[in-house]
Amino acid sequence: MLKLYDFLPSGNGYKVRLLLTQLQIPFQRIEINILNQESRTPEFLQKNPNGRVPLIELESGEHLAESNAMLVYFSEGTPFYPHDRLLQAKVLQWMFFEQYSHEPYIATVRFWITELKKAQEYHAEILKRRPSGYAALGVMEQHLAQNTYFVDNRYTIADIALFAYTHVAEEGGYDLSGFPAIRNWIEQIQAQPHHIPITDPCTSS
Amino acid sequence: MLKLYDFLPSGNGYKVRLLLTQLQIPFQRIEINILNQESRTPEFLQKNPNGRVPLIELESGEHLAESNAMLVYFSEGTPFYPHDRLLQAKVLQWMFFEQYSHEPYIATVRFWITELKKAQEYHAEILKRRPSGYAALGVMEQHLAQNTYFVDNRYTIADIALFAYTHVAEEGGYDLSGFPAIRNWIEQIQAQPHHIPITDPCTSS
Repeated sequence: MLKLYDFLPSGNGYKVRLLLTQLQIPFQRIEINILNQESRTPEFLQKNPNGRVPLIELESGEHLAESNAMLVYFSEGTPFYPHDRLLQAKVLQWMFFEQYSHEPYIATVRFWITELKKAQEYHAEILKRRPSGYAALGVMEQHLAQNTYFVDNRYTIADIALFAYTHVAEEGGYDLSGFPAIRNWIEQIQAQPHHIPITDPCTSS
Repeated sequence: MLKLYDFLPSGNGYKVRLLLTQLQIPFQRIEINILNQESRTPEFLQKNPNGRVPLIELESGEHLAESNAMLVYFSEGTPFYPHDRLLQAKVLQWMFFEQYSHEPYIATVRFWITELKKAQEYHAEILKRRPSGYAALGVMEQHLAQNTYFVDNRYTIADIALFAYTHVAEEGGYDLSGFPAIRNWIEQIQAQPHHIPITDPCTSS
């Protein structure tokens, strides 16, 4: 069976858990507690030399890292990934935006506060990252004020990638009250068939 | 004709210039000097609300942002992007690695030093980013010690994406002398047909 090495609070892991659940692809979830450096053991580094979760182990034994690469891999040929070449590139555009312009500001700040529990220690760095986090939310709000979803006006992996950390942005101290289009989009996504919350370890899979 | 909004010293812009040249796709390059905030004008923000270069304008007038999304868009169906679904996902894996684990440490430090010319002002931040930059180079070295290229043992857009900032890492103060496999790979890439250096504005295109 497919194995997902995962850390439950991770939005990146959640992206993959959510898509696999919505595609009804069964998988075994293996918890890797990154707070105990479990992704940096010699055994894990053999699987992913970059020392990060999530990580997929295919039935062939091959590994695939990077949550957004996994989203493409599993969604290809399904309604979650468009068939048209330019629409595919638009999906990728939003996923690279997520990893470069969104995740380091929104996910990382949440990690310091909720997982490391070091809001005080990271106070100056958190303040430094806030404007970039709000800028990313602003770009999303502007797009969602005119479109129901990110690409092709339907739910795709671009939405899954951006939903993962946006819907818990408030745990990182971001105030979403000024972003009505984002809040509406979050509700649309939570209403999708087979949706699961980030806290669901999918142990029944 | 295809338009590329670009900033000449940008490795992200160079990725696209290099691929288009190697594919022999003609394009018009439009210089956007980000040091003068030219990517944040109202006119440019209409084209890319995220205010970044490179940006592609297709003949249809549609825009595509994010250098690595452009690489996929233009290389699909060519030898630069594999046909196999898992190999495609591996290419994407390395491109997301590049944007998340490599670019913020290697490209950003080079930008502060060579473009902003503020090595002194950013000294503490540069020292903070060094270990992550060397960690990314270590992951690459380990892979290239056993493989000629990143995916499928042939030159693909994964190599182009990683080459762009790695071959100028020394401009950001990184010492590549301890990375013989990376240095050999750089030479392999520079020997590819229709290779151009990062300083080439492709004005003849």
